[in-house]
Amino acid sequence: MIPALAPPLADYAARHVKLAVAEGVATLTLDRPERKNPLTFESYGELTAIFRAAVQDEAVRAFVVTGAGGNFCSGGDVHEIIGRLLERDTKGLMAFTAMTGDLVKAMRACPQPILAAVDGVCAGAGAIIAMASDLRLGTPRAKVAFLFNRVGLAGCDMGACAILPRLVGQGRASELLFTGRSLPGAEAQAWGFFNALHEPDALAGEAARLAASLAAGPAFANAMTKRMLAMEWAMSIEQAIEAEAVAQALCMTTNDFRRAYDAFVAKQRPVFRGD
Amino acid sequence: MIPALAPPLADYAARHVKLAVAEGVATLTLDRPERKNPLTFESYGELTAIFRAAVQDEAVRAFVVTGAGGNFCSGGDVHEIIGRLLERDTKGLMAFTAMTGDLVKAMRACPQPILAAVDGVCAGAGAIIAMASDLRLGTPRAKVAFLFNRVGLAGCDMGACAILPRLVGQGRASELLFTGRSLPGAEAQAWGFFNALHEPDALAGEAARLAASLAAGPAFANAMTKRMLAMEWAMSIEQAIEAEAVAQALCMTTNDFRRAYDAFVAKQRPVFRGD
Amino acid sequence: MIPALAPPLADYAARHVKLAVAEGVATLTLDRPERKNPLTFESYGELTAIFRAAVQDEAVRAFVVTGAGGNFCSGGDVHEIIGRLLERDTKGLMAFTAMTGDLVKAMRACPQPILAAVDGVCAGAGAIIAMASDLRLGTPRAKVAFLFNRVGLAGCDMGACAILPRLVGQGRASELLFTGRSLPGAEAQAWGFFNALHEPDALAGEAARLAASLAAGPAFANAMTKRMLAMEWAMSIEQAIEAEAVAQALCMTTNDFRRAYDAFVAKQRPVFRGD
Repeated sequence: MIPALAPPLADYAARHVKLAVAEGVATLTLDRPERKNPLTFESYGELTAIFRAAVQDEAVRAFVVTGAGGNFCSGGDVHEIIGRLLERDTKGLMAFTAMTGDLVKAMRACPQPILAAVDGVCAGAGAIIAMASDLRLGTPRAKVAFLFNRVGLAGCDMGACAILPRLVGQGRASELLFTGRSLPGAEAQAWGFFNALHEPDALAGEAARLAASLAAGPAFANAMTKRMLAMEWAMSIEQAIEAEAVAQALCMTTNDFRRAYDAFVAKQRPVFRGD
Repeated sequence: MIPALAPPLADYAARHVKLAVAEGVATLTLDRPERKNPLTFESYGELTAIFRAAVQDEAVRAFVVTGAGGNFCSGGDVHEIIGRLLERDTKGLMAFTAMTGDLVKAMRACPQPILAAVDGVCAGAGAIIAMASDLRLGTPRAKVAFLFNRVGLAGCDMGACAILPRLVGQGRASELLFTGRSLPGAEAQAWGFFNALHEPDALAGEAARLAASLAAGPAFANAMTKRMLAMEWAMSIEQAIEAEAVAQALCMTTNDFRRAYDAFVAKQRPVFRGD
Repeated sequence: MIPALAPPLADYAARHVKLAVAEGVATLTLDRPERKNPLTFESYGELTAIFRAAVQDEAVRAFVVTGAGGNFCSGGDVHEIIGRLLERDTKGLMAFTAMTGDLVKAMRACPQPILAAVDGVCAGAGAIIAMASDLRLGTPRAKVAFLFNRVGLAGCDMGACAILPRLVGQGRASELLFTGRSLPGAEAQAWGFFNALHEPDALAGEAARLAASLAAGPAFANAMTKRMLAMEWAMSIEQAIEAEAVAQALCMTTNDFRRAYDAFVAKQRPVFRGD
């Protein structure tokens, strides 16, 4: 069980990842750089708890997820996770895969857009975290590897067989999942996995800038965009149009919609407050 | 309520858009160039009525949608639409979003392929009309912006959260919908939003040429292609294969199928008649 | 009816295609080079029977599908298929489209990854076979054409309206299916249809190398990847995550998962056996 964590996130002292909240942006840093920031049972649980708590935290309007020391994340730790999984029984294995899946569910269920800032190694569950984010910034030296088949497992991990094809196309996703090969930054951008590339030195700054711009947006409407991008995943076009008609009519009752109009008429830049 | 419009479209005198029907191609021009061709309540309604009437108009075998004066469409008019929406109650807002959604439904439901020819500004509901077309030609200077979040609204407008990810991928669609940023012509082509780019001077001619070629195709079969591209959106692969087996067997009973074979045997170019 | 074929495939003497099984890789060659390897009723049936038999053949761990003489496949033979279809009644047409659809179903249902190696002409049902494979290697001179509308038919053939949009995006797929135009190798790679391009002389070798590497992978897990890539096609994200949690927990009970860990600890390369 992942213990619930009470908002506000700004008051939470994270133990297994680094968490900093400032000006509407919560920055999560995977921070074991000497091992390229592997995930452990504990960091999985804490990340999930943080994204779940964010549902109730209006002070957080965007997330950045990144890694310390020039790498994003090397995935599940071979010794601390894989070695211990081999000792588990069926029920214990299912508990693990349900827990890792819960992280992706929590990332999709929180209303804030999540921006992954990816440098260096981005492998296994690390590649999944990048994939499960809403937006992804990379570097030329980033290497994204869905290497599950290299460790004898299937590519269907934490939603990869559903989400990766929607990001890069079914044929390219099949290649990455069947071969486990590493995707370099430039190719990842050409394929639409990365939204943009920046030099390693500039990555944190560019991620902060984009996150600040997301945080300054209409938070209620942005949350609706995120919700509908997920909800419409497997709807018919007609159903999607119907669902959006209702969702957008709701957004038209927010004060942010009026603020934008008033600012336009006054030839000013709108200041959104998320209500 | 959008009043029904009786086919043939060639006899209809459009009032809020320009409509010209010639040699099987109906060309719709958004024509308020001094304002970059914004949409109004009236033009929404008329466009919807035209696409609905097209279901019964066999003389129209392809549509071109374009804008006058070097721009495609600036979206919903700020004064004539947004200003007036702010005065509406819940029911009135829902009536508006249902009406705009009806335009996309009508575009998907008419049997003719729709080709958007996009130069210059293509913003908001204008970007939606381009997105909801079957094919899109652009220019290097075209700028496509799903700018809903800039006016305090959600990206889920008229089907965008369902359709845009299928055109450009989920990550790129997320970026466009969360940031509202403008996508230049070359990038839009690289992403698969535009099927091709042409210089502004050449755009109308190239669109007419492609539309004529579509209009010369097997209309019954092309309509079936359009129908199945929509129907199979959220089907399983097995269901899609089953549905296509039935649809294609039906197309094999058309005279156009025989005409193509006869022309092949006679080493001629087939002339399709749509029956 | 397609007669069942008993595994092992290594013992089967194919009559309408060439089949060679060696070191875990089954290579299928469409082999009527003087006609650019068209399909016939018989070769459709034999291909389907082979992929169906592969479900029970653990000695085959990957497929290569290719064509002889510098072309992949020219599609359904105009005289042997199209000419004879024109003599069929409704029931006979439906039997044909059901049979061709069965080939794609068999390709999706067999557990082995299928690699298409495509040089030269790849048209009609040939383009479908490439599309329905898991991975695709091409050459610069390859020309992929979903030319159904050129013969008076719809683009919805054997799953194309469902599968092609997931490979190259909805707009590009629409273009290919509405126009029937030929997609050159370089463009097909840029669009993600081909996973990579090789020179014609190198194609067979590169395909063999990649297939050998797939065959050396964890076969049980690779089959699960293939199964889930298909199963999750039209699932919600939540459902996909749930389904993957179960599937991956199952893969964690295989010996291949332990072999990979043991090899890692011993700083060796894992040798997978598929159990």
